[in-house]
Amino acid sequence: MSNRMWGGRFSEGPDAIMEEINASIDFDKKLYAQDIRGSKAHAEMLAARGVLSAADAEAIAAGLDEIGAEIEAGRFTFSRALEDIHMNVEASLKERIGEPAGRLHTARSRNDQVATDFKLWVRDTVDHLHDQLTALMQALLTRAEEHAGTVMPGFTHLQSAQPVTFGHHMMAYVEMFDRDRGRLADARRRLNECPLGAAALAGTSFPIDRHMTAASLGFDRPTANSLDSVSDRDFALEVLAAAAIAAVHLSRLAEEIVIWSSAQFRFVRLSDKFSTGSSIMPQKRNPDAAELVRAKSGRIIGGLNALLIVMKGLPLAYSKDMQEDKEQTFDALASYSLVVAAMTGMIRDMTVNIEAMRAAAGSGFSTATDLADWLVRAGGIPFRDAHHVTGRIVGIAAERGIELADVPLADMQGVDARITEAVYDVLSVDDSVRSRTSYGGTAPANVAAMAALWRDRLGA
Amino acid sequence: MSNRMWGGRFSEGPDAIMEEINASIDFDKKLYAQDIRGSKAHAEMLAARGVLSAADAEAIAAGLDEIGAEIEAGRFTFSRALEDIHMNVEASLKERIGEPAGRLHTARSRNDQVATDFKLWVRDTVDHLHDQLTALMQALLTRAEEHAGTVMPGFTHLQSAQPVTFGHHMMAYVEMFDRDRGRLADARRRLNECPLGAAALAGTSFPIDRHMTAASLGFDRPTANSLDSVSDRDFALEVLAAAAIAAVHLSRLAEEIVIWSSAQFRFVRLSDKFSTGSSIMPQKRNPDAAELVRAKSGRIIGGLNALLIVMKGLPLAYSKDMQEDKEQTFDALASYSLVVAAMTGMIRDMTVNIEAMRAAAGSGFSTATDLADWLVRAGGIPFRDAHHVTGRIVGIAAERGIELADVPLADMQGVDARITEAVYDVLSVDDSVRSRTSYGGTAPANVAAMAALWRDRLGA
Amino acid sequence: MSNRMWGGRFSEGPDAIMEEINASIDFDKKLYAQDIRGSKAHAEMLAARGVLSAADAEAIAAGLDEIGAEIEAGRFTFSRALEDIHMNVEASLKERIGEPAGRLHTARSRNDQVATDFKLWVRDTVDHLHDQLTALMQALLTRAEEHAGTVMPGFTHLQSAQPVTFGHHMMAYVEMFDRDRGRLADARRRLNECPLGAAALAGTSFPIDRHMTAASLGFDRPTANSLDSVSDRDFALEVLAAAAIAAVHLSRLAEEIVIWSSAQFRFVRLSDKFSTGSSIMPQKRNPDAAELVRAKSGRIIGGLNALLIVMKGLPLAYSKDMQEDKEQTFDALASYSLVVAAMTGMIRDMTVNIEAMRAAAGSGFSTATDLADWLVRAGGIPFRDAHHVTGRIVGIAAERGIELADVPLADMQGVDARITEAVYDVLSVDDSVRSRTSYGGTAPANVAAMAALWRDRLGA
Amino acid sequence: MSNRMWGGRFSEGPDAIMEEINASIDFDKKLYAQDIRGSKAHAEMLAARGVLSAADAEAIAAGLDEIGAEIEAGRFTFSRALEDIHMNVEASLKERIGEPAGRLHTARSRNDQVATDFKLWVRDTVDHLHDQLTALMQALLTRAEEHAGTVMPGFTHLQSAQPVTFGHHMMAYVEMFDRDRGRLADARRRLNECPLGAAALAGTSFPIDRHMTAASLGFDRPTANSLDSVSDRDFALEVLAAAAIAAVHLSRLAEEIVIWSSAQFRFVRLSDKFSTGSSIMPQKRNPDAAELVRAKSGRIIGGLNALLIVMKGLPLAYSKDMQEDKEQTFDALASYSLVVAAMTGMIRDMTVNIEAMRAAAGSGFSTATDLADWLVRAGGIPFRDAHHVTGRIVGIAAERGIELADVPLADMQGVDARITEAVYDVLSVDDSVRSRTSYGGTAPANVAAMAALWRDRLGA
Repeated sequence: MSNRMWGGRFSEGPDAIMEEINASIDFDKKLYAQDIRGSKAHAEMLAARGVLSAADAEAIAAGLDEIGAEIEAGRFTFSRALEDIHMNVEASLKERIGEPAGRLHTARSRNDQVATDFKLWVRDTVDHLHDQLTALMQALLTRAEEHAGTVMPGFTHLQSAQPVTFGHHMMAYVEMFDRDRGRLADARRRLNECPLGAAALAGTSFPIDRHMTAASLGFDRPTANSLDSVSDRDFALEVLAAAAIAAVHLSRLAEEIVIWSSAQFRFVRLSDKFSTGSSIMPQKRNPDAAELVRAKSGRIIGGLNALLIVMKGLPLAYSKDMQEDKEQTFDALASYSLVVAAMTGMIRDMTVNIEAMRAAAGSGFSTATDLADWLVRAGGIPFRDAHHVTGRIVGIAAERGIELADVPLADMQGVDARITEAVYDVLSVDDSVRSRTSYGGTAPANVAAMAALWRDRLGA
Repeated sequence: MSNRMWGGRFSEGPDAIMEEINASIDFDKKLYAQDIRGSKAHAEMLAARGVLSAADAEAIAAGLDEIGAEIEAGRFTFSRALEDIHMNVEASLKERIGEPAGRLHTARSRNDQVATDFKLWVRDTVDHLHDQLTALMQALLTRAEEHAGTVMPGFTHLQSAQPVTFGHHMMAYVEMFDRDRGRLADARRRLNECPLGAAALAGTSFPIDRHMTAASLGFDRPTANSLDSVSDRDFALEVLAAAAIAAVHLSRLAEEIVIWSSAQFRFVRLSDKFSTGSSIMPQKRNPDAAELVRAKSGRIIGGLNALLIVMKGLPLAYSKDMQEDKEQTFDALASYSLVVAAMTGMIRDMTVNIEAMRAAAGSGFSTATDLADWLVRAGGIPFRDAHHVTGRIVGIAAERGIELADVPLADMQGVDARITEAVYDVLSVDDSVRSRTSYGGTAPANVAAMAALWRDRLGA
Repeated sequence: MSNRMWGGRFSEGPDAIMEEINASIDFDKKLYAQDIRGSKAHAEMLAARGVLSAADAEAIAAGLDEIGAEIEAGRFTFSRALEDIHMNVEASLKERIGEPAGRLHTARSRNDQVATDFKLWVRDTVDHLHDQLTALMQALLTRAEEHAGTVMPGFTHLQSAQPVTFGHHMMAYVEMFDRDRGRLADARRRLNECPLGAAALAGTSFPIDRHMTAASLGFDRPTANSLDSVSDRDFALEVLAAAAIAAVHLSRLAEEIVIWSSAQFRFVRLSDKFSTGSSIMPQKRNPDAAELVRAKSGRIIGGLNALLIVMKGLPLAYSKDMQEDKEQTFDALASYSLVVAAMTGMIRDMTVNIEAMRAAAGSGFSTATDLADWLVRAGGIPFRDAHHVTGRIVGIAAERGIELADVPLADMQGVDARITEAVYDVLSVDDSVRSRTSYGGTAPANVAAMAALWRDRLGA
Repeated sequence: MSNRMWGGRFSEGPDAIMEEINASIDFDKKLYAQDIRGSKAHAEMLAARGVLSAADAEAIAAGLDEIGAEIEAGRFTFSRALEDIHMNVEASLKERIGEPAGRLHTARSRNDQVATDFKLWVRDTVDHLHDQLTALMQALLTRAEEHAGTVMPGFTHLQSAQPVTFGHHMMAYVEMFDRDRGRLADARRRLNECPLGAAALAGTSFPIDRHMTAASLGFDRPTANSLDSVSDRDFALEVLAAAAIAAVHLSRLAEEIVIWSSAQFRFVRLSDKFSTGSSIMPQKRNPDAAELVRAKSGRIIGGLNALLIVMKGLPLAYSKDMQEDKEQTFDALASYSLVVAAMTGMIRDMTVNIEAMRAAAGSGFSTATDLADWLVRAGGIPFRDAHHVTGRIVGIAAERGIELADVPLADMQGVDARITEAVYDVLSVDDSVRSRTSYGGTAPANVAAMAALWRDRLGA
């Protein structure tokens, strides 16, 4: 077809099915801003190096700005026959400014162009995600500050293990999401090399200045090997991997919110904003947002997995397989952004049921470890023996349906004569959490101090 | 918000972010035809059972038909505030026919409704995919018939191992795609039970006739457990798994086409329709369609993986996580359909380079096994010994840079005195393939017979 | 190295790292019984066709039996230098019976041999898994029969939606696991074609009888294309896919058991056999077995994913990549078997807390739908309006902290004047479940009937 | 069972199936060195803080050393009834030193203990992998230095696009593996916080010094939140993700080696060390090691996927699901290590066929871009027009079956009159690669300079 830029040698137009499988404009138009930005930097550099006249470069820049404004305003018509965003923009430039448009593609190729556009998009998105994670951490921090002393059961195996505070629980996620920020930051640093000028795969004989385009696009430096520049997508994979790990963190908090919202737990109540009802059961308050956050982890992991599979076993340099990189990355990172936003909203808005948490924390012999530790400290009993003694006292309590603090001293002493009245000082949930003052432990003072430290780190 | 059907008890409207994460209309509108079909069957049954008046049922059916026609024509405006296809249709029905619309949802719930819609969609798609695979098998069959006797190297480890025929190679994929059809057929049979009437999760107290709706929607029977009906999505998982396995088959043939299209192999030449050029290298004929077929395997496997993860660990019955089922399934099965169509086109159109295949088949001592087998048959030599003898003769040929058929008899006899002139009868590639007459072997007569048998099976 | 069967032409021995990556004997020795069985069938057929003398065939069979017995008894020494099970067995046969051992490999190759061995192993395992699933279904059935009338909350979104019976819940899993059995059965039927005689990839010129070996190994027929026979592993993929779907089902029941075992739910209590304690918290009863069942879904899905990736993009016929098929399949199916066994034990042994279930079922306005349905039936009110009326009554109850059955008639009539005393007949949980008599609904009589039907189907 | 440390309250021993699913000693014994190291650090700290007497601490340290030596020497008998490495070591310590052994577990739990052990193991492995990658980079560097000027076809879509040098191709992988090292280094830095002292989940009331144990185990600091410390496994996920990305890189190089080793390409020849033969086709030299490197990417990605799935949706803190972390990580990282080692060996040993590469580089109009670029530079023709002109000249050459350099000037001028004799200066492959002097381009001088720079960076 005559209007295809690469079509000179082909006698037949592509089949409809070929256009369907081959054209990428339906999704890569999302890269329009990056594409225009990259082309402007390229044209400016070509002019600086004398490859392009100043007049041509100016015409190109003006034409590109016009196109950018039209796309922004939704007034640009994309053409599937022109395959991709690069061709759509260049063809439109040709219509606007004529011959100079044909000089823009000097010393570059779609291979380095798309790698540059896509890297810029990923970098912009990473920056946005980093800010979103910070906002989520701040929301968690606020709840942690409010609830530094709110006692709840600390679970292992969803069984009440030892009392902790709700603030401490929130702070656990602050740590996780900070590592998730760290992974994004590391990926950003590693990807921040500019592929533009690698051309098709071998570099170019034109006297270009890759350091200039790299700098003007905010990259730390140009990439060092032209084959690598157009062949690899490990920057997208790394960001997807960071997203997948974060999505798992988010799925865990979401699962907790679903469980905590059940009538049996009643630890939290989501706001109306983040609940939905049922078409048939009017009494329902469904934690849909939490469930969707949990579910999107599948989508994000699926996207990572898909791109790993796409890239597996591809010989260098560019293969068309790599066109599959964008939809997976767009979708997974949009999902990541969405679930962070939804989680931030839920955390901010949810009501914490302090009484329900406290009641649950105090049942189930949750201070058994405190009893065992007391035996070690006060009685000098080896921990393993203290553990057995405690087990027997718990057995007595369980049999009678009472809590540990209600087991009479005589019965305790019947198990181990070394037990004294002082033991009762460690059997309440408040005593328990207050005692956990080891670094990183759940003592309310610890939690408050750690929250203050994070408040400081995050600014605000 | 007052226009939300479930909103009676909520004082605040949902957040923008909640609408973003919660609304499914952007993708589940694809189910409109199935939704309308299901609602009509439901209304007709309710009328038959006296739950709905005949007049109401008629009004509902007429209204639904009108809505269907408008959607078909692209004149229907979907509303995100109405969340999903079910609510969009019902709200529109209400506007058209008033009160009776409010009676349609009697004895059902969105839970059984969406399960029914989605199953119908999957079933329709499976039927379409089955036909597409048949067309691909026919295309392969045609090439197999043409090339039952075209000799090519049979590779293991991408090393020439023994000569085979190109027709035999094509027929290998006929076997694979037939098993892929079988997997679809089995999944279809297993899924063909109707969830409608399971209601929210417990069944209903209305005197409905689930066998009637099942029959009217083409299901074999109603599902047998209401909780299972609204909780499980194993039917989608099974079809996705069948798609993933087929995608692997397609990726293998695609990889072969990419390799065969290289200048080094030149076994096949894709038509212009299924090739693309390069923006900078005008001489290129790139097998983009084959590469994209190969790559889409990642996408389809990713979709299967995603939905498996979404469903992992969900307590019964319906959880909102399950809303993630549709996009994964839509995308993976659309990709499946696309790659089968593209592969069918490529197979039909590609030019087979008989000479290049024959030349490659004859080099690399590819009839070494024939020599070893001859030693066993003619000389009564144990296979393992024959193998060693052959290895030494190959060594002589390799050293001199000649083919096996060119090693003088005296040199062969120098390795093993039992070798006679007759050995040269088995050393040509034509002799080799002709001799492989065991069931399923590559002998041209075998290939032709097997192709005839398949032609018969497939009809046409 | 002189003792390597294929080593004739190689001047250097393989590196240690090569042996490490290349040798498969550490895991494929698991196929010894299948390998010996296949070799015996092959030798017997060769003798029947006159390719082998009767005496040689007898010597081979006797030698193989001896080897099998030694391996069984743990007295066989496997050698890594001999790479795999096939070479280990053949080399040992040579030591025992001398020359005839060298005739066994006539008209076959390791390619068809390993495909046959592996298929036999998969088929044996599928048969075992099918029986295990049947046992699990029987365990569920027993609990369903005991608890056909035990009321529990039916959850959606882990919120109490409508009452169901515990028996009905158990029966939902009977349906799921029966579909899992069906998937295994379909896979078994599809894989049951014998690759033996496909030889390296092209078939053979020896006058073999593939139908004879197929029959003697219990296959329905020989495979129809030699290239396909040695190239494809879709039979393993299909069984892994069936395993992954079943693992998701198992993970859901496991998640429920973990939640139900929490102090907040207390719906079930695992037996000591399937619980563990804590090294530091003596009061804990941890549902470890359920957690591990849930977790193994990751392992099984991971195995499926891994093998799909391994097979992606491999050109025909055999590539060494395919050696990775076995460990993934062995591990995933062993995990599948283990989790079915563990789940069967848990279901059999767990104690059901009828009172806790009933109490939970009755709270949370779980009969709101019954009220709405009553309004439709008794008042002729459109369902959507009935839903709004119900929502307002639930609002009253929620505000006062009472259940629906405790809302005075006058207050109900204040919302809708058409409500009468008769409404109270549908507001108890027992009334509710009894009323769900639609096919597949939760009414105890339905559950009992369905259980009887399944008892009949499963025999015993 | 009396010998189980947590068994005090259980009346029945665990089922065989429970032991099968629950015991981890079969795989976590791999952590013995880390477990002993952690316990020694813990005991020393407890003594320093006065929780343990100096004598007890000494007895513990001596006992642990003894156990370590026995395990090292293969003389230690592990017990499945004791479940895991922690219990096996502690029980053995008790047998050796009696009562003080029971004091070791003071102020810790298996939850923080296993997190510490596993982190130490992952960290050790990361360090080892980092070194292995460096060795691989050095091997690539050596080949790059040798072949800085060896011309080969640069492929896109496996079609010859432009000439590059083999050295440049090797250097592309140096860049990739350096990013893989970077990912390991970042993960190491992020994980290097010590969980020991987080105890079960809440911290402890004993006056421990977590900074002391952290320092003594080589950690940068203690973890900051006890719940996070025992709940999260993102450090393993991050390393697995880094492994998966690296495995994709390795699979690409492996695919190239397989293709390059084919009779059709003949670009490289693997050494005997890294090839295998065939049991039936004595002439084969199979690139098994490369194929296995390619295949292991599936295994490693499968492991990452599995652990992501295992962790999805787990409520805090420790759940038994997390026991699945170790086998996936052990297997994936062992595979990673193995494929790096195998690839290093292949790269070092393989023979490069300079002539075959050069011949391939010169065919297929691979300097068409050079012609187009010349037109831009010499003729001032816009690139897009130059591209069309070139396409027409390629058409002439293709029609006549000649290369570009052989198209007579008159014919070129027939297409575009501006072409002069000087054009022939850019049409040879040597001219082409020499001209690609842009930063990161394939010019031999560039490659040599880049190799020198890397040689410097890597030391050695």
